[in-house]
Amino acid sequence: MKINGTHYRSVWPIGDAAFGIIDQTKLPHDFVTLTLATPEDAAHAIAAMQTRGAPLIGAVGAYGLALAMRDDPSDAHLHRVHDRLAQTRPTAINLGWALGRMRERLLAAPEAERARLAWIEAAAIADEDEAMSRAIGEHGLAVIQGLAAKKNGETLNILTHCNAGWLATVDYGTALAPIYLAHDAGIPVHVWVDETRPRGQGASLTAFELGSHGVPHTILADNAGGHYMQAGRVDMVIVGTDRVTANGDVANKIGTYLKALAAKDNDVPFYVALPSSTIDWTLQSGRDIPIEERGADEVLKVTGRLAGGGVATVEIAAPGSPAANPGFDVTPARLVTGFITERGVCAATPEGLRSLFPER
Amino acid sequence: MKINGTHYRSVWPIGDAAFGIIDQTKLPHDFVTLTLATPEDAAHAIAAMQTRGAPLIGAVGAYGLALAMRDDPSDAHLHRVHDRLAQTRPTAINLGWALGRMRERLLAAPEAERARLAWIEAAAIADEDEAMSRAIGEHGLAVIQGLAAKKNGETLNILTHCNAGWLATVDYGTALAPIYLAHDAGIPVHVWVDETRPRGQGASLTAFELGSHGVPHTILADNAGGHYMQAGRVDMVIVGTDRVTANGDVANKIGTYLKALAAKDNDVPFYVALPSSTIDWTLQSGRDIPIEERGADEVLKVTGRLAGGGVATVEIAAPGSPAANPGFDVTPARLVTGFITERGVCAATPEGLRSLFPER
Repeated sequence: MKINGTHYRSVWPIGDAAFGIIDQTKLPHDFVTLTLATPEDAAHAIAAMQTRGAPLIGAVGAYGLALAMRDDPSDAHLHRVHDRLAQTRPTAINLGWALGRMRERLLAAPEAERARLAWIEAAAIADEDEAMSRAIGEHGLAVIQGLAAKKNGETLNILTHCNAGWLATVDYGTALAPIYLAHDAGIPVHVWVDETRPRGQGASLTAFELGSHGVPHTILADNAGGHYMQAGRVDMVIVGTDRVTANGDVANKIGTYLKALAAKDNDVPFYVALPSSTIDWTLQSGRDIPIEERGADEVLKVTGRLAGGGVATVEIAAPGSPAANPGFDVTPARLVTGFITERGVCAATPEGLRSLFPER
Repeated sequence: MKINGTHYRSVWPIGDAAFGIIDQTKLPHDFVTLTLATPEDAAHAIAAMQTRGAPLIGAVGAYGLALAMRDDPSDAHLHRVHDRLAQTRPTAINLGWALGRMRERLLAAPEAERARLAWIEAAAIADEDEAMSRAIGEHGLAVIQGLAAKKNGETLNILTHCNAGWLATVDYGTALAPIYLAHDAGIPVHVWVDETRPRGQGASLTAFELGSHGVPHTILADNAGGHYMQAGRVDMVIVGTDRVTANGDVANKIGTYLKALAAKDNDVPFYVALPSSTIDWTLQSGRDIPIEERGADEVLKVTGRLAGGGVATVEIAAPGSPAANPGFDVTPARLVTGFITERGVCAATPEGLRSLFPER
């Protein structure tokens, strides 16, 4: 993805003793990159959501664990840093998946080799994520082509929630990858971008990505999508996910469930785009997914640009009123039209998932 | 309703040549009252949402039309000001109802009497609105008592969207009136307050009202209510409405439809509280209700308190990204458990409405 003419991935190695990320808490107001040189830097960046998006934090966690091996390649340190990084965000499965893959590989290697191998493995996880995103984009493009064919050249309106674009992955994105490919292929697409309160990742990150790439889009309050579906102004929904369970239930950013209900009520196709590392084969149902509760300040305060320049945070609510802030919800499989994965598209059912991943 | 120990209504006469309102665009950061001395003052206050809430803008419109009769009691001026005020907000029916009632009464009177009669009629509309709100509160209290009886003394959790409290009426409120009466009666209630983007009337006005009255409450991003319903943490929903059609469809603040879908999906009772002036007997379905489109700035900018004092407006979205802003949506009658009116509770069906309003 290009920003101001420069190609960026969302995470990149710097030599072999540090790595870089884009500080996503500063977007869209400022474009700032951070250099992370310790495992604790990585843990803080994930917990504070300077880096976010289920696939991306897997790669960032892997690089964080790789850094730890330079300091102390012992089993004890490996387990300690693994656990520290794993507990930064509980809902997304990719983080645990990437950390587990790193630990398994490193435990099998002699201590003297671990720092070098860890760096190679983290880079492999990042490269594989980019390849998976590109494959998701191609399979999703076929879905979009099918729906666009019914529009007789009219613009296809796609609604998305939160940010599942290249900022949420190493590159391309999950939910946005098919949209980028469709736009590049000349299919007229327009994206309804859910603001995605409380953190506003839609209005800030998704709108920033789409604007940078030149994809037509319009920001909506999270409340508005149902009304536009009733009015026939949404042709499909594509969202990402933080964890899919074996029965097809989908954990994703808070509010996804409400859009899935509205899509079902108005016969709008509702797709979830994901790399297979997001599937938690060990959980039978979404009821078992831990839901992260985040701080009240994300609801009570908003950050933005002042008219005179500079960035400020303002308190928006009645003074003294408390807030609650669940970070995710679970969309039941019955509301999902299909999964778009790196291996193809399938139904949101155990049979659908097994058809694409028979080895499971 | 008391604020800092002083009893306020949301609109009040000042002598016989002006009237007062609370500037709701300044809440919850500042408590400011405005004196409106011309019909154009009233039109501006309604259009800019300095005063808002379907029942309240009916009373404000009536006072605005009354002011016009002091300047020029002619039929032509009466029609002109009626039409000017009526077009300020298209979705709520109460405004048109109150203005129509005023015009009918005044056309029947000699010009020399109109200024005096108009002032009396506007006061009557305000008094009747307060009485209706109190009656809605009493009928809604019975519904709450019924649900609370199943909780074995545990707190009853009620979700509401936007502001249908005393700030939206002359006093008491519609959706909040039963909650105030239940709290005052010693029933343990807790309110989940939808923030209600883009204008944030929940986080600002509803939280301000409930906090002022001492009712336990928690602000939620609009995205969160469905998740809490899935988790069994919402016992009922009560919202207000801007217009109900003869078949029971409900126009209300954008996002209401999404909460109604989630309530249905989780067997949570979903009630709509309204004075009968909100019922549009001339429309057969919600599809016929005009939906107001408001400016993009309400989505793209947020106003709040700076940590160092003062109030500031910040731009929150990616620079250059456009926004759309439908103000209302329509909740189909099939998703509504019942209407709470000044005459009692009924089903959201033509038969239900006719049972309470047989004269229609």
